[in-house]
Amino acid sequence: MEKTLHSEMIYSGRRLRLHRDDVELPNGTRTVREVIFHPGSVAIVPVTKEGDVFLVKQFRYPVGTELYEIPAGTLEKGESPEHCAARELNEEVGLIARKIEKLGRFYVSPGIMNEEMHLFRATNLIKTGREPEEGLTVERIRLSQAVDKIKKGEIIDAKTICGIFWAVWGMPQKETY
Amino acid sequence: MEKTLHSEMIYSGRRLRLHRDDVELPNGTRTVREVIFHPGSVAIVPVTKEGDVFLVKQFRYPVGTELYEIPAGTLEKGESPEHCAARELNEEVGLIARKIEKLGRFYVSPGIMNEEMHLFRATNLIKTGREPEEGLTVERIRLSQAVDKIKKGEIIDAKTICGIFWAVWGMPQKETY
Repeated sequence: MEKTLHSEMIYSGRRLRLHRDDVELPNGTRTVREVIFHPGSVAIVPVTKEGDVFLVKQFRYPVGTELYEIPAGTLEKGESPEHCAARELNEEVGLIARKIEKLGRFYVSPGIMNEEMHLFRATNLIKTGREPEEGLTVERIRLSQAVDKIKKGEIIDAKTICGIFWAVWGMPQKETY
Repeated sequence: MEKTLHSEMIYSGRRLRLHRDDVELPNGTRTVREVIFHPGSVAIVPVTKEGDVFLVKQFRYPVGTELYEIPAGTLEKGESPEHCAARELNEEVGLIARKIEKLGRFYVSPGIMNEEMHLFRATNLIKTGREPEEGLTVERIRLSQAVDKIKKGEIIDAKTICGIFWAVWGMPQKETY
């Protein structure tokens, strides 16, 4: 445990809040922790019965490039992860899923940020006809192609790597180890 | 592409820098982007010839709990990812690796942060006898147990999930799909 001695809010913005805390470590020494507060998020691996996955491609300002990602989004105030997953799947990819299963949850960058991401697999997909959000392109590829893109360095987003690997190898019925 | 109209530095601290930028989207509308700048980092999956992996357990202040993670750390100024990987492996786990292979790289949270993480697999391990850093506990477990811990929600750190899955199923000699 680390004990908070003083917490100063440096910034509170649209998507994040930054605090700078003075803390006491278990051995009694003092240090500073910079912490980003985030409302939490979801990511969804939408898989068709043919074994295809839907990815979105979008420009990411912080890294200055377009990335392939699984659909994802930030929890709204009071929203459940399941609701957020269904909403983002419709908004970003124009899909409704008859089945949404929780794969797991993880912290994105626990050394500096409290963001917790909930990971889902969506199957039995129905197209809603809704156009994807402006700036987003949707691509449908084989799951095995997505694995190749990870190994070749064409998919370079952490949640997408977690999600694809989990959907391909982490499901109970596919245990091989 | 998104065009930066104005960039304001909100905070510059020990481990991160926060900017608040006014940007113009391709369609001409304007918006605000909050961006965290990070020097980049590495994570290492240290695997023994018996198929065990070394994990570290440490308290993470931003999330208020202890987490199991693969060894990892932040790039120092001018440091190569390979050098950083070898350094962190020694500092956190007390190991030298005769072989360090790059598995890949990924952005940790590209919607809000520019942190790029380089992922390595370390093999042919030699113990240096160095004690792990204060506050860190080292545990050696089977890779298959680590996969179980991911599925059971006992490993809930994104880079560790990427690293374990990649080391178990992503290596060229283990392709099964």
